[in-house]
Amino acid sequence: MSLQAKFETYKSILENALKALRNREFFAQYPEMPSPAVYGEDAQARGQQAFENQLNKPFDRLLQSGEWITSAEKSPYKNEPIGIQYPIYQDVNQYVELSKKAFQTWKKLSVEERTGVLIECLERIKNHFYEIAFATMHTTGQGFMMSFQASGPHANDRALEAIAMGYEALTYFANHTIWTKPMGKITLNLEKEFIPVPKGVALAIGCSTFPIWNTVPGMFASLITGNTVIVKPHPLAIYPIAIVVAEMQRTFQVNGLDPNIVQIAVDQPNQLITKLLAEHKDIKIIDFTGSSSFGNYIESLPNKITFTEKAGVNSIILDSTTNYKEMLNNIAFSVSLYSGQMCTAPQNIMVSKEGIQTENGIKSFEEFAQDFKAAVEGLCQNPKAGPAVCGAIQNENTLKRIEEAKKLGKIILEPQKIQNPEYPNAMTSSPLILAISQEDKQVYEQELFGPVVLLIQTNSTNDSIAVAKEIAQTHGSISCLVYSTKNEVIKKVKEEMMEAATSVSFNLYGPVYVNQNAAFSDFHVTGGNPAGNASFTDASFVTKRFHYVGFRQPK
Amino acid sequence: MSLQAKFETYKSILENALKALRNREFFAQYPEMPSPAVYGEDAQARGQQAFENQLNKPFDRLLQSGEWITSAEKSPYKNEPIGIQYPIYQDVNQYVELSKKAFQTWKKLSVEERTGVLIECLERIKNHFYEIAFATMHTTGQGFMMSFQASGPHANDRALEAIAMGYEALTYFANHTIWTKPMGKITLNLEKEFIPVPKGVALAIGCSTFPIWNTVPGMFASLITGNTVIVKPHPLAIYPIAIVVAEMQRTFQVNGLDPNIVQIAVDQPNQLITKLLAEHKDIKIIDFTGSSSFGNYIESLPNKITFTEKAGVNSIILDSTTNYKEMLNNIAFSVSLYSGQMCTAPQNIMVSKEGIQTENGIKSFEEFAQDFKAAVEGLCQNPKAGPAVCGAIQNENTLKRIEEAKKLGKIILEPQKIQNPEYPNAMTSSPLILAISQEDKQVYEQELFGPVVLLIQTNSTNDSIAVAKEIAQTHGSISCLVYSTKNEVIKKVKEEMMEAATSVSFNLYGPVYVNQNAAFSDFHVTGGNPAGNASFTDASFVTKRFHYVGFRQPK
Repeated sequence: MSLQAKFETYKSILENALKALRNREFFAQYPEMPSPAVYGEDAQARGQQAFENQLNKPFDRLLQSGEWITSAEKSPYKNEPIGIQYPIYQDVNQYVELSKKAFQTWKKLSVEERTGVLIECLERIKNHFYEIAFATMHTTGQGFMMSFQASGPHANDRALEAIAMGYEALTYFANHTIWTKPMGKITLNLEKEFIPVPKGVALAIGCSTFPIWNTVPGMFASLITGNTVIVKPHPLAIYPIAIVVAEMQRTFQVNGLDPNIVQIAVDQPNQLITKLLAEHKDIKIIDFTGSSSFGNYIESLPNKITFTEKAGVNSIILDSTTNYKEMLNNIAFSVSLYSGQMCTAPQNIMVSKEGIQTENGIKSFEEFAQDFKAAVEGLCQNPKAGPAVCGAIQNENTLKRIEEAKKLGKIILEPQKIQNPEYPNAMTSSPLILAISQEDKQVYEQELFGPVVLLIQTNSTNDSIAVAKEIAQTHGSISCLVYSTKNEVIKKVKEEMMEAATSVSFNLYGPVYVNQNAAFSDFHVTGGNPAGNASFTDASFVTKRFHYVGFRQPK
Repeated sequence: MSLQAKFETYKSILENALKALRNREFFAQYPEMPSPAVYGEDAQARGQQAFENQLNKPFDRLLQSGEWITSAEKSPYKNEPIGIQYPIYQDVNQYVELSKKAFQTWKKLSVEERTGVLIECLERIKNHFYEIAFATMHTTGQGFMMSFQASGPHANDRALEAIAMGYEALTYFANHTIWTKPMGKITLNLEKEFIPVPKGVALAIGCSTFPIWNTVPGMFASLITGNTVIVKPHPLAIYPIAIVVAEMQRTFQVNGLDPNIVQIAVDQPNQLITKLLAEHKDIKIIDFTGSSSFGNYIESLPNKITFTEKAGVNSIILDSTTNYKEMLNNIAFSVSLYSGQMCTAPQNIMVSKEGIQTENGIKSFEEFAQDFKAAVEGLCQNPKAGPAVCGAIQNENTLKRIEEAKKLGKIILEPQKIQNPEYPNAMTSSPLILAISQEDKQVYEQELFGPVVLLIQTNSTNDSIAVAKEIAQTHGSISCLVYSTKNEVIKKVKEEMMEAATSVSFNLYGPVYVNQNAAFSDFHVTGGNPAGNASFTDASFVTKRFHYVGFRQPK
């Protein structure tokens, strides 16, 4: 089948995605529930088998060669290395040279051809969602459900979103025109071509907690616009994205294309290659998710187009509610989910000294602290929900930080190990909850990555808003959640947080959480505060990856 | 009239602009010829009178206060100061504070409201095209026709193009949606808002040669997306853009808006304020036209969105032609126009040692050099065309550089003063033409700003292409012109110059020149080589000036 025919095959997927994207409507090409009816009766069993078979063996599905090294990846559940070997090139120039070679053919495809083969990549990745889920669990520590959703359907939908946005950008301007200018007695006719020219080789730098979800938007945005991509995964979270890359390379190969259109460049914690690649003169585009300090370094590199998601400090403002209990449950879930290791996880919960107005009267700061403690404890110590929701701690350093954080305020809830019968050695921790006051700025303005929650007593809801705004402007925020029954509070929050370039959710109850951002609808990170300079997926996220070159001659 | 009603008034202008922009068709809202039938019988006389009345007087049309200083502006035609006084704030923070205040109201207007008032600005600026033309002549040294066209209709069309592109970007995504997610037994309904939020205060840094044309695209792109603008003109070319700013301030005022939505911040060569403004923490966006060294500094500033047009070295490749004489005339005009002081002016003309294939046989490099010399001499020494086409030299340093350049190669044509009967003291120079060879890389890879033309003998047309490509990639190019009758040469040029992100014109004869770039059709600068990081006007030129903030709550 030609690539053009492939485009026709997948055209309706593209059109649905484009319609949703533009209207910001609900749309999911890849259903988020791991349902046997959707993904196959034996899909989970096959996925688990594939995972078991891969442990402590060479990952031999990549269409890449090189020397074999054993990665430093370790399962947070088993608390032991997963022992997978990957091929690497000792000289990073090798990745760049192969990518440049692949670029020579990839850039020449039409946008329709690229769209066709990239959607086919997603359709084939779908067949590996379960193995991807287990690989994600055992590198990131996410629970099974999040591993499946975030690395599977949600990631694929974000990738499809990038394809759709790129398709739109590349087809906006006419590529050919006869330009006819009346000049008095004569008319000037010029035949003009306008070619969207990709920048070249792109680098996509992954993080340890969301190795696929945070990587594929940039990858697919670079690819749809004609660039080739080198993926540099976090040295502790390689396996999930390696499955994606391998499947993409095979898709390229069966379509007669160079598998090196996308490559994975694996490294080890004691021999990192990220800077070597990032500073390479032929790397034109860099997508990055990770720490603020490294993100700032990436942004400072001259002559690179960069897209960053860095750290943020997220706020919850509690003013008033119509359903106090549901509010507590909603927030308890949000701070416990994946043990606060999501970039959208709330950290600072602000209650004024006047308390929270509820359907049962005013709840003081102290009452709220106790009620919230009970809600978190109830969730995390629930034998079934606790381990499923909290997952495991990805990195030992996070456990150390929780311990150190204890001295930062009055302890409301001691962090506790979460018993996981399936994985007794799992590295786990329920949230540490501390009470502090508005004066403790040096405490709450820092990102305390992981399950650390600060309850901050402020002077007023207005002060809570001011604190949330200032933190967002100076340290970056990715999410914000506000409970209020008052229109004037909601209006004020919108005005202030708009200035701090932070999206806000109001009055969430039931199964919808501030941590969640839906593809095709919610922009992830605004690009307007220190938490990052890019947004999944606005127009700039794709248009900056190519430029127009014009040719003209008399007709 | 409400601003919404104003939008309706001008809606058809917007729609015509959008259609042309998307299809890259010919469109001009502002006719380029200074025709009395279009602009009024007495428009020229009135414009000249306004100009004469302004000389050596305070420029009192701005709605700005401050202390009055006399600018260093000097007429290249009269070779004497024009002696205009402008108001300045001694403390640059004052501009920023006033801009931040204006931002609070400007950002709240709808895109339709901003579109309406900005198009009205252009319609009112139109009434000053003739004074703008004289102001441009007597600061930049451009001839009258170029002064009229570039600073008047062409600049206004580029501004309209930025408005149209901004309108398109701001209306692409739905601003409001009910997001309905089926979740098994229940359905989740969220009401969502998506607000395009401007970045804040923008700085537009002008250049001495095209004080309006190069400034208004960035200005209007910032304004349509809701940012306020401080214009920092070149200290030697203030008057033209001051007319524009004054007219815009008055348009804002009559529409009940804060005139400080746009301000002009004047400085003097011995007390420059550009860096103070550029590094100010509240300046979020910077548009810059000027030298490569300063442009690189602007691009390196952390946490700024930058749009730069820097220096470039432009090539002509002569392979073969069907009309040798017309080719000579076309190129002679292009190198003489405004004495080579356009950023699109060709500098390096390459002919292989095998010569040029013409309708009358092969012309050797030496024959071409003599024929080209004759064509340039004929044009520049023509009493009528010479001064009109060449204009005057903006800056004395350019005259010094021409003198110094003489030692760089074999002199084919000595630069000569161009007699201008109207302005006997005008600083003028016809082009210096030098012959060098492909080996003289250190000579031809530098920008020799002004009327300096290098005829480079190369080994082959393929080498000419390789040289043009390498210069574009390493030093930047904004234009390229190729004459060839051979499809394989044209194909090769396209492939190679595409990689160097340089637009190419082929086989131009008659009244169309490589220097010219039409609004709504030709992208000016690609943003893909060292000549600049932005393009007039692609999507990124507007989308990077705002970001989306989302609000969501249960419906």
